[in-house]
Formats: sequence, structure tokens, C-alpha cells
Amino acid sequence: MSPSQPLRGVVPPVCTPLDAAGEVDTASLARLVEHLVGGGVHGLFALGSSSEVAFLTDPQREVALRTVVEAAAGRVPVLAGVIDMTTPRVLAHAEAARAAGADALVATAPFYARTHPRETARHFRTVRDRSGLPLYAYDLPVSVHSKLSPALVRELAEDGTLAGLKDSSGDEGSLRRLVVALGGRDGRADGPAPAFSILTGSELTVDAALLAGADGVVPGLGNVDPAGYVRLYDAVRAGDLDRAVAEQERLVALFDLVDAGPESEMGRNSSAIGAFKHALRLLGVVAHGTTAAPQIPLDETAVAHVEARLRAAGLLPVR
Amino acid sequence: MSPSQPLRGVVPPVCTPLDAAGEVDTASLARLVEHLVGGGVHGLFALGSSSEVAFLTDPQREVALRTVVEAAAGRVPVLAGVIDMTTPRVLAHAEAARAAGADALVATAPFYARTHPRETARHFRTVRDRSGLPLYAYDLPVSVHSKLSPALVRELAEDGTLAGLKDSSGDEGSLRRLVVALGGRDGRADGPAPAFSILTGSELTVDAALLAGADGVVPGLGNVDPAGYVRLYDAVRAGDLDRAVAEQERLVALFDLVDAGPESEMGRNSSAIGAFKHALRLLGVVAHGTTAAPQIPLDETAVAHVEARLRAAGLLPVR
Amino acid sequence: MSPSQPLRGVVPPVCTPLDAAGEVDTASLARLVEHLVGGGVHGLFALGSSSEVAFLTDPQREVALRTVVEAAAGRVPVLAGVIDMTTPRVLAHAEAARAAGADALVATAPFYARTHPRETARHFRTVRDRSGLPLYAYDLPVSVHSKLSPALVRELAEDGTLAGLKDSSGDEGSLRRLVVALGGRDGRADGPAPAFSILTGSELTVDAALLAGADGVVPGLGNVDPAGYVRLYDAVRAGDLDRAVAEQERLVALFDLVDAGPESEMGRNSSAIGAFKHALRLLGVVAHGTTAAPQIPLDETAVAHVEARLRAAGLLPVR
Amino acid sequence: MSPSQPLRGVVPPVCTPLDAAGEVDTASLARLVEHLVGGGVHGLFALGSSSEVAFLTDPQREVALRTVVEAAAGRVPVLAGVIDMTTPRVLAHAEAARAAGADALVATAPFYARTHPRETARHFRTVRDRSGLPLYAYDLPVSVHSKLSPALVRELAEDGTLAGLKDSSGDEGSLRRLVVALGGRDGRADGPAPAFSILTGSELTVDAALLAGADGVVPGLGNVDPAGYVRLYDAVRAGDLDRAVAEQERLVALFDLVDAGPESEMGRNSSAIGAFKHALRLLGVVAHGTTAAPQIPLDETAVAHVEARLRAAGLLPVR
Repeated sequence: MSPSQPLRGVVPPVCTPLDAAGEVDTASLARLVEHLVGGGVHGLFALGSSSEVAFLTDPQREVALRTVVEAAAGRVPVLAGVIDMTTPRVLAHAEAARAAGADALVATAPFYARTHPRETARHFRTVRDRSGLPLYAYDLPVSVHSKLSPALVRELAEDGTLAGLKDSSGDEGSLRRLVVALGGRDGRADGPAPAFSILTGSELTVDAALLAGADGVVPGLGNVDPAGYVRLYDAVRAGDLDRAVAEQERLVALFDLVDAGPESEMGRNSSAIGAFKHALRLLGVVAHGTTAAPQIPLDETAVAHVEARLRAAGLLPVR
Repeated sequence: MSPSQPLRGVVPPVCTPLDAAGEVDTASLARLVEHLVGGGVHGLFALGSSSEVAFLTDPQREVALRTVVEAAAGRVPVLAGVIDMTTPRVLAHAEAARAAGADALVATAPFYARTHPRETARHFRTVRDRSGLPLYAYDLPVSVHSKLSPALVRELAEDGTLAGLKDSSGDEGSLRRLVVALGGRDGRADGPAPAFSILTGSELTVDAALLAGADGVVPGLGNVDPAGYVRLYDAVRAGDLDRAVAEQERLVALFDLVDAGPESEMGRNSSAIGAFKHALRLLGVVAHGTTAAPQIPLDETAVAHVEARLRAAGLLPVR
Repeated sequence: MSPSQPLRGVVPPVCTPLDAAGEVDTASLARLVEHLVGGGVHGLFALGSSSEVAFLTDPQREVALRTVVEAAAGRVPVLAGVIDMTTPRVLAHAEAARAAGADALVATAPFYARTHPRETARHFRTVRDRSGLPLYAYDLPVSVHSKLSPALVRELAEDGTLAGLKDSSGDEGSLRRLVVALGGRDGRADGPAPAFSILTGSELTVDAALLAGADGVVPGLGNVDPAGYVRLYDAVRAGDLDRAVAEQERLVALFDLVDAGPESEMGRNSSAIGAFKHALRLLGVVAHGTTAAPQIPLDETAVAHVEARLRAAGLLPVR
Repeated sequence: MSPSQPLRGVVPPVCTPLDAAGEVDTASLARLVEHLVGGGVHGLFALGSSSEVAFLTDPQREVALRTVVEAAAGRVPVLAGVIDMTTPRVLAHAEAARAAGADALVATAPFYARTHPRETARHFRTVRDRSGLPLYAYDLPVSVHSKLSPALVRELAEDGTLAGLKDSSGDEGSLRRLVVALGGRDGRADGPAPAFSILTGSELTVDAALLAGADGVVPGLGNVDPAGYVRLYDAVRAGDLDRAVAEQERLVALFDLVDAGPESEMGRNSSAIGAFKHALRLLGVVAHGTTAAPQIPLDETAVAHVEARLRAAGLLPVR
């Protein structure tokens, strides 16, 4: 379970259930961890984007992370997001994450301030050096508004700064170039590069990413259907790609739940996170579908859309 | 060979060789067509982005298209790009393409003028109605600066406006949602949708795209190594995904030739097109590596980079 | 009237009236030129974005330009847009513009293909050298998706490639840096730089731009109210900035007509161009409000919005 | 000095001097406040982008703000930036700012998470309601990656949510539409809208912005030359626009110091902030030119560039 070994498998970004007042609902969060571990996942990513990390205050982040670590109880490694604008603020989160028992850290490039790639490299090196924990780079241009270049990731992989990459850039071509540069799908473990985990955040093309050499997936939708993603992962590992494609297509259809809220009325983020949380509520895992301010909550029509998708995917009985 | 049937396989965007004066080198272009058809490709896409369609005058476009149609001689279908800013200008190109013998048209959404999705739908419907040829939508946000939504493509697929999609958006998740919406990888032929070809322009992840349900690929690099892409396609069709991955990884390594020109000195477009053309020259297929104005030509160092990549990929003998 | 001298004043981008079939309505266009020249404008910009240049076929471009040149009859200079993707295509338009009698050309940087600044410089130099006409650079990032840097414009001003700049980038800070680099508001004529016209396309801040050192303005709204822009220009030149601000504020209020069409239903381009054309129809200048395909036409509600704005601005009698 | 009255004049974003270890250098910061107040500025904006707010930890933010409030000693109002990703985190900063004695708050729209305009409105309303302090919206698309629409700002101005706007969007046309919608340059105080301060962050076009109806300016360069901006402001208020233009042009030339660091080596942010800080060091105001991690520091050549600009602008004696 040491995260300094390449992490493989399904590592969902754990939603952060909130109570009606907007505080972390620790009982629901512990049940969610049980739901995920029980579904067979291989790791947990706390304080990621799907965890509403951008919305949680520092005390809430600490409560959420401690709850996940405690509930995981060493059964799977816990990665902790240390998401903030720049190096000094990320270092403060890293210190808190270490104290809370995280096994590894996940950091983006700096955002808000415009940053040069050389400064981004400095950022990751400083966080790695000061935190003393394995570090995953989180490539998420939709939020960070810059893309980590394959050349930079490769440099930071080869000098040991990074233990892995969580790639949510959607740029599968660049990811493929990185895999090949690091030794190819089959050769990475033996190559000149140290062990390096490539985790895709592209939850709709996991079969393809694993085929191409990714080591695992960080699927937001995995909160709702962890067992589905584990079956998909196992099918690829077993070489049964037809089964993998069928499972992936079922999950793609289920993913439609993220469109619950109308685009003219609310953000795509709010719609997706609200849908995951209401799905978990309908499945009996968490108590509330509450999302953090200023996100607009799903209305009844939107919740009905979520419920219909759960029934269509076989996660709730068809009425 | 009727393009009103779903087009499948490898359909390279045919480079347009130019002579030293910048005019279309028809003898080289005919040899290139022979190189491609001889490599086993299943169709040809003339006047695409890799053909420098944006740089060719209308008379040059006509010469290039007529040369490809004549050289193809009915052995494979010829798709013709009708790339321009808006409907009236695209219609003029469509008329020219029909007269030159194209089997189908490939059009982007309008660009330069900002266009609403409803206007984009009107655009494709008008081009389809007036041209009388099968129409492929070309999704290329890097040039067009808007993305075709899966919902719009689906609408235009289901009402018969589009015969297919050439997806160079790199948004594999949206493409997957489209595949599933149209019936899934195995069900598309039998579903409520008419036959609809999905061709990916993501030349570095063809194995993954075909696994996911794409029908074919439009690889710029296929100018250089058509047989490699045909082997990759055949391996997936034969269910031999390990062989497909190995072939894809070889092509990914070869793709490094597009970085021949230094980023600080010339555009990424010029570097890639220049590299394809010089590779074809080094392989003895075309006479010149000339690219159209205002592209900066590759210098000697860059050409040496191209040559080294060809040797490493086994396309030229290692010295 | 020689455009090789710095062009100063109000130079509206002339709308291209279309008949119901979408062809150029030359009688309306001649009346529009009379409306503009009668309003006191100092030049005419044919085949600009507000002229729907992106929508006109090559024969339509020629008809429109010849009509403007003939109607202007030497009273004011005529600048012609040569808007296309790359150098070879722009050169073809430049040849046609020279043949039609244009006094100067207006070209953007290349678009569709990604272009390096060095290639953009090559582009402008080639167009200037081959066309033999004074050349204005048209900086329009909303359409071209790149911004001309002040350093590049300055280089091309100082070596005589460019006779001027039509700046629709909205980046007033960069424009100011350019003015200062070229000698400052008062010093440009005498500095080391050759005469160089700076025309702003920011029609809502003309008072400010002229104060800062711009030589003139290219206002789309000037089609509707040329005399208003001429009064605004004259007020600044006379040093009566209070009067200039009042006139500008009246024009800003009038500009609301571009929001005629609902954003959820049609493009911002279609709404603005449709509003200008319907306003001209309501003013009795042109026969139709038709816009080119695929633009969605204004509906009755939208036209009523245009009419109300004209009445509020004093251009139609208040009922 | 009540910030619930419209704030007018020069309100520089106060740089945060750091010592060699990267901690807030409070002695230097107090001297900087004296430099600014002594220069005649009308307010201070602590914890803005030029203050490196994105780089300061929460304890550092508190030290910096308390130092500014204490040094200002009630002579001018102190606005405090509460820059963070979403509402809950901004509220935590608001609480700290109130405790530290800020007179008003400055908040951006949410960032990192994609947010709908309705959610952005909710965000500002919640921050205003919970904080109990006058609230300024900070429109900074280069960092926040969304633009506040004039319609939204107007709505929040008219219902009293916002006391003002700090507009660093560079979109002068939209700002002008807002001024006109709120009653025009001269009519805003008497219109239906409550008093509302419009402060531009466009430090290179202050003469133009004030002419158009802005109430003041928040110039990063004002750290270096506060008296220059005060003279510029006073000249416009006195109706002497020629003097204002001359002063603005001098400041535009001085602004070249932000290009001290080479674009290929460091971020534009690092170059600008580093230049401001080294300029302040050369002027004897602060002890170090240190910038926060991961920004690359200016090298000797860059510092020499800064010094040359200071001499050229008359801020240091010419040697």
C-alpha cells in the first residue's frame, strides 16, 4: 500500500458530503468511504475537484481529510489534494495534509497568477522537497488555465520530483507521447525513469487510457458506481476488452446524470457535483445532496433526471 | 466505394506538394497518391488542414483536387475539404469540388465571424442541401475556435444532414458520448441513426479511438507512413490489440518529427507540415519540402531531425 | 486625399446591403455611400467585418468594392479589406482590390492556421511588397484569435511596411504604449517613424482614443449615424471634450441596438449586423435588412428594439 | 473618508515587501505606505494582485493588512482584497479583514470552479451580507478567466450589493456602457443608482478613463510613482487634459520597467512585480526586491533595466 510504489487502479476523488448548514457531514463521508472501499477501489483521492476542495475552508478541508484517512483505516492509500494558487499557500496545505495522515499529495500548477513553465517546475520541486511526501501533479487546464507540457512532466518524472500524474487535461495525444517517452506501455517499469503512476481523470475513456498505458483512473463518477469502474479496470487487466468497452459504455450512459441542471441556469460544475451528491443520497450513502455556496442546488426536475439515470444504469431498481 | 456508405479505415489528409515557386507540383502529388493507395489506405482527404488548404488559392485548390481525383482513379473515395469562413463561400468551394469529381465534402463550422450553434446547424444543412454530396463535419477547434457539441452532431447525424464526422477536437470524452448516443460501438449500424462515419483526427491514439467505436482515422502522419496506419487499423480490426499498441507506439515516436522547427522561431503548423513534406522528399515521394507563405521553412538542423526520426522508425535505412 | 498620408477622421466600415436573394444590392449600397459621405466622413472602409466580408463570395466582394469606389467618386479615400486566411489568398484579394480602384488595403494576420509572429511579419511584408498599395494592419483578435503585439506593429510601422493600424483589439493599454513608442500624441508626425495612422475600432470610446493620440475611428455604428461620429471627432479636434463626451454617451446609448437579437437564439455578430441593416432600412437608406447565410435574421421584436433605439437617439421622430 | 461614499482618486494596490526569507517586511511596508500617502493618494488597496495576495499565506495576509491599516492611521481608507476561489473561503478572509480594520472589501468572481453568472451574483450578495463591509467587485479576467458582464454589475450596483467596481478587464467599451447605463459621466450621482465608485485598473489610460466617467484608478505602477498618478488625476479634475496626457505619457514610458525580465525566462507577473519591488528598493523605500515563490527573481540585467527607466522618468538622478 506504499504510495511511493506506482499507484494503480481506481482512485475516486471522494465527494465531501455537507449537511444542510454547509458543514462537512462526517458520518456521511465515512459511509461514502465504506461504499468506495467496499466497491473495490484501489485508493482514495480526498480534497480533489469533485470533493469541492475549492469551496472548503481550511478547517473543513482538515475535517474532511481526517475523516477519509480514519475511515480508510489503512486499507487503501489516501491521496490529498493541496489545491491553492501558489507555492506558499500549497505548502501550508501540505503541512496540514501530512499532519492528517495523507499518504501522498496532489498539486496543480500555480493559478490566478500567470506563471512561466520554469516557475511551475520550481513550484513542484519546492512542494516535493518541503513536504516530504510523494507528489502527484494534477493537470486540469479547465480550472488552472494552463497545461502541463509532456516535456515538463517527463523532466519532473525522471528527476524524481513527481511520483505520478493525474491527467484531467483531456489531451490524450500528449499523454500518449509521455507514455512513449517514459518507455512505452510495457516498458515503463524497467526504463531509465523511476516508477511513475499515470492516472487519467478522463472517466469516459478509461478502457482506451488503460489500453494506452495509463495505470489507473480518478473518476468523479466512481463515487456513484465504484464497482463499475473496478469491473472496467479488471476487464482491461484481464485482456477482455470487449467486456471493458461494454462496461465503459454503461458508465458513459450513466454519466448523463451530470447534465441534470439546465445549462442556462447553473454552472456545469454545480450540475455535476449536485448530481453525484443526489445520486449518493438516492443510493442511501449520504444524507444530503447539499453543495457548497455559491453553487445553485439541483431542483426537483434535476433530481428526477438523476434518479432516472440511476435506474437506467441498474443502480436503482426500475419501477 | 460509395461514400454514402459509412466510410471506414485510414483516410489520410493528402499533403499538397509545392514547387520552388509555390505552385502545386502535380507530378509529386500524383506520386504521393500512389504512395498512399499503395500503402493500403481506404480513402483520401484532399484539401484538408494538412493539405495547406488555408494557404492555397482557389485555382490551386482546383488543381490539387483534380490531381488527387485523377490519380486515385476510383480506387478509393476522395473527400474534399471546402474550408472557408461562412456558408456562401463554402458553397462556392462545394460547387468546384463537385465539378472536380469529389465523392464527398468536408466542412467546418463557420469561423472568423462568431456564430451561434443554431447558425452552425443552418450552415451544415444549407451546404448539404445545395451541394448534393455527402457531407462530413470537421471539428477542429484549434483552427475554428468553436467546438461542435455532441448534441448538435447527433441531431445532424440523425436527420441525415451529415454522413460523418472528422473529429480533430481531441475531446475523446465527448466523442465517446456521441458514440454511445448513436447506439454504442457495436450498435450504431442497427440503431435509429442512419449509417454515420466517425473518423478521428487524433493520430496518436488511433488504437484507443477504434476500440471505442471510431470507424477510421485521418492521420496527417499517414502521409509519411500510410502502411503503418493500415497495419494499426488492421490489428484492431483483427482484435490483436497488443500489436495495435506496439504499432501505435512506433508511430507516436515517429510523430516527434513535427517538432523539427524550434518553437521560438516558427509556428507549430509550419513545423509539422514542413516535417511531413521533407520526410516525403527524403523518402523519394515528392520533389520539394516547400511550404506555402508565410510559413517559415525548415532549416538544415530541422531537416536532419526529420531524417533521424525516419531512420529510427525504420522508414529509412540506419546509416 | 492621398492615403499614403496619415489618414485621419471617421472611416466607417461600410455595410453591404443585400437583396432578398442574398445578392449585393448595389443601388442601396450607393445610397449608403451617399449617406456616409453626406454625413461628413473622412474615408470609407469597404469589405470590413461590418461589411460581412467573411460572408461574401469573391464575385460579391468585387461588386461591393466597385460600387463603393464608384459612388465615392474620389470624394474620400476607399480602403478595401483583403480578409482571408493566409498570404497567397490575401494576395489574390489584393490584386482584385487594386483592379477595383481601392486606395489602400486592410489585412489581418493569418488565421485558421496557427502562425508565429515572425510569420505574421512576413505576411504583412509580402502583401505590402506585392500589392503596391498602402497597407493597414487590422488587429481583431475576436475573429483572428491572435493579437498583434505593439512591438511587431512598431517594427512594421518604422520600416514602412504599414501605413497604419486599425485596432479593434480593445486593448487600449497596448495601443497607448504604441502611441508613446512612436513619439507620443503630439510628436508622432515629427518623430523618426514615418507617418502612421492609428484608427480605433472601439466605437464606444472614441473620445478617449482621440484624446490619447488615435488619428481616427472605424465605427460600425457610423453606418447608422455618421454625422454623430463626425460631430464627436470635430469636438475633440476643437478641444471641446465635454461636448465630445456628451456625443459619445448618446452614441453609446444608441449602440444598444446591437443587442436586438436574443443571445440565446442567435450570434452576437448576426444581431449587430442585422441591427445596423434594419436601422438603415428604417432610416430609408437601404431597401432590406437581409443578412448573409447562415446568420439568423432579426425577428419583429428585435426590429422593434432597433426602431426604439433610433427614436431615443433622435434619428427617427418620437411617436 | 467613509468608503460607503463613492471612493474617488488614486488608490494604489500596495506591494507587499518581503525579506530575504520570504516573510512580510513590515518596516518596509510601513515606509511604503508613507511613500504613498505622502504622494497624495486617496486610498490604499491592500492584498490586491500587485500585493502578491495569491502568494501570501493567511498569516502573511493578516500581517500585511494590519501593517497597512496601522500605517495609514486613518488618513486614507484601506480596501482589503479577499481573493480566493469561492464564497466560503472568501468569507473567511472577509472575517479576517474586518478584524484587521479594513474599511471595505474587494472580491473577484469565483475562480478555479466554473461558475454561472447567477452563481457569481449569489457569491457577491453572500459576501456583502455576511461581511457587513462595503464591497467592491474586482473584474480581472486575466486571473479569474471570466468577465463580469455590465448587466450583472449594474444589477448589483442598483440593489446596493456593490459599492463599486475595480475594473481590470481592459474592456473599456463595456465599462463605458456601464457608465452610461448608470446615468452617464455627469449624472451618476443623481440617478436612480446609489452612489457607485468605478475605479479602473488600466494604469496606462487613466486620462481616458477619467474623461469617460471613471472615479479613480488603482495603478500598480502607483507604488513607484504615486505623485505622478496624483498629478494626472488632478489635471483631469482641473480640466487640463493636455497636462493629463503629458503626465500619462510619462507614466506609460515608465511602465516599460515591467518588461525587465525576459519573456522566455520568467512569467509576466514575476517580471512586473519584481520590477515594482526593485524600483522601490532603488528609490530607498523598501529593503529588498524579493518576490514570493515560485516567481523567478530579476537578475542583474533586469534590475539595470529598471534603474534606467527610473532615471529616464526623472525618479532617480540621471548619472
